[in-house]
Amino acid sequence: MDTRVTQDIDTLRIDGNRLWGALMELATIGATPRGGVCRLALTELDRQGRDLVVGWARDAGLAITVDRIGNVFMRRPGRNDSLPPVMTGSHIDTQPTGGKFDGNYGVLAGLEVVRTLNDRGIRTEAPIEVAFWTNEEGSRFVPVMMGSGVFAGAFPLEHAYAARDIEGKSVEEELRRIGYAGEQVPGDHPVAAYFETHIEQGPVLEDHGKTIGVVDAVLGIRWYDCTVTGMEAHAGPTPMPLRRDALQVSTRLMQEVVALAHRHAPHGRGTVGMVQVHPNSRNVIPGRVRFSIDLRHVSNERLDRMDAELRDLAALLAGESKLDIAIEQVSHYPAVPFHADCVAAVRRATDKLGYLHMDTVSGAGHDAVYVARRAPAGMIFIPCKDGISHNEIESATPEHITAGANVLLHAMLERAGVAG
Amino acid sequence: MDTRVTQDIDTLRIDGNRLWGALMELATIGATPRGGVCRLALTELDRQGRDLVVGWARDAGLAITVDRIGNVFMRRPGRNDSLPPVMTGSHIDTQPTGGKFDGNYGVLAGLEVVRTLNDRGIRTEAPIEVAFWTNEEGSRFVPVMMGSGVFAGAFPLEHAYAARDIEGKSVEEELRRIGYAGEQVPGDHPVAAYFETHIEQGPVLEDHGKTIGVVDAVLGIRWYDCTVTGMEAHAGPTPMPLRRDALQVSTRLMQEVVALAHRHAPHGRGTVGMVQVHPNSRNVIPGRVRFSIDLRHVSNERLDRMDAELRDLAALLAGESKLDIAIEQVSHYPAVPFHADCVAAVRRATDKLGYLHMDTVSGAGHDAVYVARRAPAGMIFIPCKDGISHNEIESATPEHITAGANVLLHAMLERAGVAG
Repeated sequence: MDTRVTQDIDTLRIDGNRLWGALMELATIGATPRGGVCRLALTELDRQGRDLVVGWARDAGLAITVDRIGNVFMRRPGRNDSLPPVMTGSHIDTQPTGGKFDGNYGVLAGLEVVRTLNDRGIRTEAPIEVAFWTNEEGSRFVPVMMGSGVFAGAFPLEHAYAARDIEGKSVEEELRRIGYAGEQVPGDHPVAAYFETHIEQGPVLEDHGKTIGVVDAVLGIRWYDCTVTGMEAHAGPTPMPLRRDALQVSTRLMQEVVALAHRHAPHGRGTVGMVQVHPNSRNVIPGRVRFSIDLRHVSNERLDRMDAELRDLAALLAGESKLDIAIEQVSHYPAVPFHADCVAAVRRATDKLGYLHMDTVSGAGHDAVYVARRAPAGMIFIPCKDGISHNEIESATPEHITAGANVLLHAMLERAGVAG
Repeated sequence: MDTRVTQDIDTLRIDGNRLWGALMELATIGATPRGGVCRLALTELDRQGRDLVVGWARDAGLAITVDRIGNVFMRRPGRNDSLPPVMTGSHIDTQPTGGKFDGNYGVLAGLEVVRTLNDRGIRTEAPIEVAFWTNEEGSRFVPVMMGSGVFAGAFPLEHAYAARDIEGKSVEEELRRIGYAGEQVPGDHPVAAYFETHIEQGPVLEDHGKTIGVVDAVLGIRWYDCTVTGMEAHAGPTPMPLRRDALQVSTRLMQEVVALAHRHAPHGRGTVGMVQVHPNSRNVIPGRVRFSIDLRHVSNERLDRMDAELRDLAALLAGESKLDIAIEQVSHYPAVPFHADCVAAVRRATDKLGYLHMDTVSGAGHDAVYVARRAPAGMIFIPCKDGISHNEIESATPEHITAGANVLLHAMLERAGVAG
C-alpha cells in the first residue's frame, strides 16, 4: 500500500449521523413511553429488530449466516476470503426497561464500519464480520449471554434450547417461530479477532473525563448466598446480652463485604444487593437473614483472597455470636484478561484518533467474555450518562457514539489489513 | 382479725390443677394443630372464649358488667361494697399463631383467686374484680391494647369503633355481632388497685433461674422509620469510591442502634426488625433502604439521649456519605413506672410465699400500662420457656403458673383487706 492510501486510511472516519440514525430507528422497535426499549430475546419484537438489522446488512452487501442458537453473522468478504474474519458484534435484545444503546450500539457500530468501508470502496485483506448474539440479557431466558456462551462451548446447545420463559415457551420453539434457528453448528466459525464496542454501564470514564476506555480485562465474579440464623424474639422483653440477633451479625458481614473490596482496590468490588429479613416485623428481633454477596476482581488470585477473608470473618463472627452463618457460592465466573494484540490495536487506534482515553476494566459480563474463549478479543468502552444502564433513561452522546465507532473502525482495519 | 385468721390467710394457696385445667379448656377454643391458639379479637371464637369465661364467673357468683368497648368486669362483692374494687385482669384474644398463656393466664389466674376465696369462704373488705380487656393483641384491629386504651382515655371510643379489619368489618359492628357492646361508659369504673399476672415473654427470669418477676416499670418505646437514599448502580462497573450505596450506610446505622442500646445497659433496647432494600437485586447496588428502629428504655430521659445519639450519628453519616438519611418517629410510648404500693404488695407476697424472685421491667406493652393511668397498678411475671411468646410453642410450667397466681392472691388480699 502506498503512502497515499495509508494517509487516506488514517483520515477515514465513520458517519456519526448515519450511525445515530440507525440507533434511533432500531430503538423504535419496542420503544417504551419513557424513552427506553423493551425488546426481549426471541419475541416478535426481537424478530422485527433482527429483520431490520439483517435487511440493512443485505443492503450493504453482506452475506448472512445464522447458527443453531440464532447468532447472526453478517460478512463482508476480504481480498483473501479464506482468512478467518475479523469480527465485531454485540446483541440487540434488551432488558424489560432497557435503553437504546446497551448492545445495540456494538452491532450498529459494526454495521457503520462496513458502510464506511463501502462508501470509500476500501477492501480489507481478511473478511470482516458483524455479529449479533442471541439473548445476551437473560431477562426472558437464563442463562445470560446465551448465544455467545453456546458459541464458546460454555454450555451445550441442548441446555440453551431447553430454557423456558415464565409462560413455558422454550428457546428452541421461539427460535423456530421467529425464523432464526439456523443451520450452522455454534462455534464452527473461525474468528481471527473479535472487538466489541459498548457503553461502559458505569461511571469511570465520565468521572475521569475520558472519551474512550481501552478495556484490558473483565472482572471475575463470585456470587454467594449467605444465611445467618439466630433466634427471633420480642424486641421489648429481650435484653441485649440475651439476644441472638441475626441482623446484627449480618450487618457486620455486610460491612466487611464492602471493606474487603476497598482493601483490594482499585479493582475489587463488593456488593450486598439483596436482603431478606425474617420475620421482618418492627418489634421482633430477626431470627434469620438471607443476603446476596457479589465479589469481583480483575485478578483470580485476589478473588481467592477476598473469598478467604470473607469466610474468615464469617467464622470469627459465628464463633463470637454462636449464630449459624452459612455461605454458599452460587455462581463463579473467572476474570478474563483480553488479548494483548486486541487491546493494543484498540489503544493504537485511540491514540491515532486523538481521543482522551484510559485503560479500564469491564465490571459486567459481555458477549466478548465468551468469545474470548475462541478468539483474541478486546473491547472499546464509551461513557454513558451518570453510568446508568439497564434503565430507560440510559443515555450516551452522539460524540461518544461516533468516537467509539471510529476506534472500532481503525482497530478492525489494523487486524484485518487494508488490501492496498 | 385474730391470729388464727391471719395464719389461715398466710397458708392460703390457689388450686394449681384447677387453674391449669381452665387454661387448657379455654385453649381448646381456636386451638391450632401445632399446640397454639388462634382466637382473634371479636371473632366468633372470641365470643366463645368470652362466653366460657363469663359462664365460669357466673358459676363463681360474680356479677358481670360490660362497657361500650367490650371490656368485661366480673365482680365479687366486698364487705364494704362501696369501696372501689381491687382489680386484676388481662386479655383473652390471641395472635394468629399465639400460645395458650399470653393474656389468658392473667384472666384465669384472677378467676382462680376468686374460686379459692369462695372455697374458703373468705370475704374481702373491698370488692375484687377480674377484668378482660378487648383486643389487646391488635392483630385484627389496630391500635393494640384497644380496650384498656379506651378505658384509660388514651384514645376515644369512636376511634376504636371505627377501626376495621382487612375485610372491612368495624370494631363496632363486630362488638354488636358477638354481643359484647356493653352499656357502661369506658373508664367510668373506679379502681383501687390493679394487678396483672403475665408470662414474661422474654428470657430474663429463666436466665436468672427465678420464679417470679416483680415488675416495677414498663419500658418506654420509640419507633422510627429510617430511609437512606443513595443511587442504584450496576455492581460490576461501579468502583467502590464512586458508589452511593444506601445499604452500606444503613448497616452502619443499624450497628449503632444495637451499640447505643448496649451503652445504655441494662435497660436499653435497640432493634432493627424490618428492612426493605430497593431494588433488591443481586447485582445492583441498593439505591434506597428503609428500615425500622425500635428503641426502648425504662427512663424517659435516657430515651431522649438514645434518640439524640441516633440522630447525631445519622447526621455524621449523611455528611460523610452525602447520602440522604431521613429518620421519622412513628410512635412514642413513654416509660411507665408502676405504683410503689402495688410493686411493694407484689414483692411482699412473693417474699411471704418464698419464691425465688427478682425485680424486673416489662419490655412489652400490656393492658396494665394503660390501666396505670387510672389506678395504682403493678404486674407479676412468671417465666416462659426460652422467652418465646406470640408463638404456638409458647410454654409455661404448671409450677410457675401456680406460683404467679399465689402471688396475685396475696397481693390482692393485701390491697383489698380480709374482712375478719
